[in-house]
Amino acid sequence: MGYSYLNNMEMEEALELYLNEIKARGIHLDTEEVPVQEAVDRVTSRAVFARISSPHYNACAMDGIALFSKSTSGATDTTPVFLKENEDFVRVDTGDPLPDRFDAVVMIEDVIEVGDGRIKLIAAASPWQHVRQIGEDICAEEMLLPSNTRIEPAAVGALLAGGVLKVEVKKRPVVGIIPTGDEIVSPTDSPGAGEIIEFNGSIFSGIVRRWGAVPRVYGIVPDEFELIKNAVVEASKECDVVLLNAGSSAGREDYSARAISEAGDMLVHGISIKPGKPTILGIVNNRPVIGVPGYPVSGIIVIEMMVKRIMEYLMGLSCEEEKTASAVLVRKVVSSLKYKEYVRVKLGEVGGRLVATPLDRGAGVVTSFVKADGLMEIPLNSEGYEKGREVRVKLLKSMDEIRNSLVIVGSHDPLVDVVGDIMRRNYPGEYVSSAHVGSMGGIMAVKRGEAHAAGIHLLDEETGEYNTSYARRYLGNENICLIKCVKRVQGFMTAPGNPKQIKSVSDLSREGVRYVNRQKGSGTRILLDYMLKGEGIDPEGIYGYEREEFTHLSVAALVAAGSADVGLGIYSAARAYGLDFIPVCEEQYDFIVPEKFMELKMVRHLREILESREFKERLDEMGGYRF
Amino acid sequence: MGYSYLNNMEMEEALELYLNEIKARGIHLDTEEVPVQEAVDRVTSRAVFARISSPHYNACAMDGIALFSKSTSGATDTTPVFLKENEDFVRVDTGDPLPDRFDAVVMIEDVIEVGDGRIKLIAAASPWQHVRQIGEDICAEEMLLPSNTRIEPAAVGALLAGGVLKVEVKKRPVVGIIPTGDEIVSPTDSPGAGEIIEFNGSIFSGIVRRWGAVPRVYGIVPDEFELIKNAVVEASKECDVVLLNAGSSAGREDYSARAISEAGDMLVHGISIKPGKPTILGIVNNRPVIGVPGYPVSGIIVIEMMVKRIMEYLMGLSCEEEKTASAVLVRKVVSSLKYKEYVRVKLGEVGGRLVATPLDRGAGVVTSFVKADGLMEIPLNSEGYEKGREVRVKLLKSMDEIRNSLVIVGSHDPLVDVVGDIMRRNYPGEYVSSAHVGSMGGIMAVKRGEAHAAGIHLLDEETGEYNTSYARRYLGNENICLIKCVKRVQGFMTAPGNPKQIKSVSDLSREGVRYVNRQKGSGTRILLDYMLKGEGIDPEGIYGYEREEFTHLSVAALVAAGSADVGLGIYSAARAYGLDFIPVCEEQYDFIVPEKFMELKMVRHLREILESREFKERLDEMGGYRF
Repeated sequence: MGYSYLNNMEMEEALELYLNEIKARGIHLDTEEVPVQEAVDRVTSRAVFARISSPHYNACAMDGIALFSKSTSGATDTTPVFLKENEDFVRVDTGDPLPDRFDAVVMIEDVIEVGDGRIKLIAAASPWQHVRQIGEDICAEEMLLPSNTRIEPAAVGALLAGGVLKVEVKKRPVVGIIPTGDEIVSPTDSPGAGEIIEFNGSIFSGIVRRWGAVPRVYGIVPDEFELIKNAVVEASKECDVVLLNAGSSAGREDYSARAISEAGDMLVHGISIKPGKPTILGIVNNRPVIGVPGYPVSGIIVIEMMVKRIMEYLMGLSCEEEKTASAVLVRKVVSSLKYKEYVRVKLGEVGGRLVATPLDRGAGVVTSFVKADGLMEIPLNSEGYEKGREVRVKLLKSMDEIRNSLVIVGSHDPLVDVVGDIMRRNYPGEYVSSAHVGSMGGIMAVKRGEAHAAGIHLLDEETGEYNTSYARRYLGNENICLIKCVKRVQGFMTAPGNPKQIKSVSDLSREGVRYVNRQKGSGTRILLDYMLKGEGIDPEGIYGYEREEFTHLSVAALVAAGSADVGLGIYSAARAYGLDFIPVCEEQYDFIVPEKFMELKMVRHLREILESREFKERLDEMGGYRF
Repeated sequence: MGYSYLNNMEMEEALELYLNEIKARGIHLDTEEVPVQEAVDRVTSRAVFARISSPHYNACAMDGIALFSKSTSGATDTTPVFLKENEDFVRVDTGDPLPDRFDAVVMIEDVIEVGDGRIKLIAAASPWQHVRQIGEDICAEEMLLPSNTRIEPAAVGALLAGGVLKVEVKKRPVVGIIPTGDEIVSPTDSPGAGEIIEFNGSIFSGIVRRWGAVPRVYGIVPDEFELIKNAVVEASKECDVVLLNAGSSAGREDYSARAISEAGDMLVHGISIKPGKPTILGIVNNRPVIGVPGYPVSGIIVIEMMVKRIMEYLMGLSCEEEKTASAVLVRKVVSSLKYKEYVRVKLGEVGGRLVATPLDRGAGVVTSFVKADGLMEIPLNSEGYEKGREVRVKLLKSMDEIRNSLVIVGSHDPLVDVVGDIMRRNYPGEYVSSAHVGSMGGIMAVKRGEAHAAGIHLLDEETGEYNTSYARRYLGNENICLIKCVKRVQGFMTAPGNPKQIKSVSDLSREGVRYVNRQKGSGTRILLDYMLKGEGIDPEGIYGYEREEFTHLSVAALVAAGSADVGLGIYSAARAYGLDFIPVCEEQYDFIVPEKFMELKMVRHLREILESREFKERLDEMGGYRF
């Protein structure tokens, strides 16, 4: 019982140790014979040799006559040669077998008919002209594919042409995935409080299936030692590799290490990577069993960085090509000396350079992997990277997609997602990559050349004017264009029926009212502060003023769940959650774009979208917008 | 009936015209709802929104106690705060829901037990500390994925976390493939003369399946107009896209164009690409029907360059990322002004530069696509490229594989394939890329920096010595190492029983003896010429002296098929075909490697392989080698 000890072994060292053990024990995939037509993307387990030649007969390559070349020797305009049908020549079509006694084909265009079953030739034929000879493409007994080769579609053609109908390949490895945990429940759209939806199994399945493996996801096993151990033993009998998900750390209820140790051998527990440290490498019943951490981001990293290597060893080749790119880091990233750290980044090609923006490093945030375009590795013994540094990034999306993404940062509004959706529907090959960093964050990102456009709604307290004066103040040295977008209503969102009777900003500091705020730099926060100042209200007196959220929707979500009584946000967010809405003002939401980007195809399409009927209709459905 | 007219439309123009027509007719894929767990790699047909937030409740992020932060205000070492269990606080574990009346969690490590159901704190808690708030990862109603997005494994996690259990995706497009032709037969290992094995259907299936489509291969349709037309009509009712294979040109028996025209509309016939010109773009029953040329290489090019674009339009995204690389062309390539030409090339990274060697341009040679590493495009109106030119190549293999390939060119011997096979088995991640260009070709390739190693067996007529003097003569200025490989027996190969009673080189010029030769520059050819000279025999007197083959196996194949009576070659080739063998001499087959490459990992492994037991055993099995 109790806590076990966690190592901090370097990943490469751990993998070498583990792979050597797998090799020493002779662990390998079985083979099977499959019809060649079904063999695309399978991996040969031994060299494949042609059984017949291709062509398998000397084939006429033209419509015309077949003859013996010597019978035409000396033929010219002045000394023609006459030949007799069925004696000196026969008529043939393309693809016909060349009769044994002949060695050349003369094209029908060069044959002069003279009647009487005779023809005239005025040029000599060279031996084997217009003949596709036996073995021109493939010779019988020739090695068509070596061992450990992924069978490409064209290779299937070569195998069939070589008379190979079945091919011995490695069996697809079966990867067992065992989710564990008392709090884990199968996917549902109405989980109870305290219940966590199991989705790692589906993520891992998708990843290993792409490698050519067959995932087998077992039922959820509760946090009980015996049950977990039994599950591991069973899976190790049925699968080629087993992934035991969660409970791989050294806590009180982390039974994975003990289960693997008792069922077989645990070789490594604890790797110096982050996220992903609490990883277990073990062998049970001569099958690799890997304890994979439960946080989805940690789990994905361990699958991609370690499980993949084990699969590659078993399959005898690379599962997929690693694509990397060089990018400029836009923010300083601090890292622990003790770990090799993997940081998800967003990538964008802005003004000809690829920029990398680090994403949330929380290991529980699965959406960070959906949003991420790349993975940046910070080595062990490094304190991190400075801003502006050129970094190597492993690509998670295609470079095509990254290059053709319009990078919009700044204030959150669901309309940005709508723009992205219309871009995908109407402009194939183009994408929107967006990040919510607030209006001020957006301005600064544009200033630093990290984004093509920023969505902003910034009220100038002096002039009451929106956006232009801010753009002028912070981007004075650049030529900036303002693309007018929408007017939208801001207001207080409350539970239906407005139980706390919120009417104005002065109600926020009332006893018993729980506010939820937006982050510093967001236009909505600036609006709130402007109103508080106008009313002379001290923010200190507002419960929840420090509780910061990054989007209108997350404010609405907290109010809807009863975790806060009121928040300031746009009408469409309140409506999405069925909340009451007390309008405060109408503001202008616009995009700023450096003039130099205005002629980019994607920016032109942004403007087309903002002016489109479809955009207006969809915003009308969401409510609270005017054009 | 008769011949129809073939256009020569530019590919981009043809595609634009065709895609516009497809769009104008509203041709699209249907949609279906699938369980999210099965949705990896499917394509969203509309934006997907979260149904619930994640976390969907305020979750304690630490083991400890939950409390109201205000109740701890002012707590310090000297002014501790005392709290009562179940009144001021409750005990919680990680993942537990935070009770509504509380707003913070204090870690168990910071809780001082004082008995009586009371605890002591010496630091104030800030609101929402150690709480994963509702919507921290995902907010209900947030757009999780836009339309036309390929669902990645991590996205499945996000969808499930967001309470989405089913997702609307595009149906996998069904691609009908209709093979046609009187001479075409289903795959077999014993085709009759004049029969051609159907394998295009399997190649095309493999390609489109990789794009996420479902191939449906129909039975072979003979060259009869009505049957072909009916097949097209039927397939157009059952499939989203139809590929009609072969008969797409303008010959007498090419019915595809007429079948498509009569069944629907033919928009384009004839594209200015090579190979691939006789392509048809049509629409039947509101489904794209493409006439694909029958030569496998032409067919693959048309599928990759045109059919893919149509699939991408229908699916709303890229089927796969195009990978390209820049390489130095090692030979001049001539191209027609009238066509955009696609040339298959082998690529190798030799001495730090990527070199591209053009392959056989025959459209019927399917193995050229198996051997090819890349595809070089020579534009319309270009006469070709000069040797040494930097060219852009579309990669057909992974850059990893190309970079880790040992490039061996030179004399053919099946032992080179054995080396390649052992490399794949014993040195994961390493490959052999070989080409048969004869011993002299190998020496020149090494000299020009196009290969790491060359296999040679060159007899110095003066000294009777093998290989070293040639290497010295042609590579005198470079430091070259000779890796000793094997002694092998050369001899005359004849049909079993040696019906023509071949005993020595003097029998070759006998009446009625049909010889088959090797190409100029090959060591075997040089050996023959040396022997002929020694005997004073005029090559002109040998029937078949001009009939040149590139490998021992192709010589053996022709002798075995009775298409020639005798050829000179190595014992292993004769044995593979069960031929009689009249030994002529034993020669030395070695590898030459520039000294600067000797320390390359792959060259070290080549040496290890040549000295390995496995290599010797496999060559012993083949016969005719000594070590």
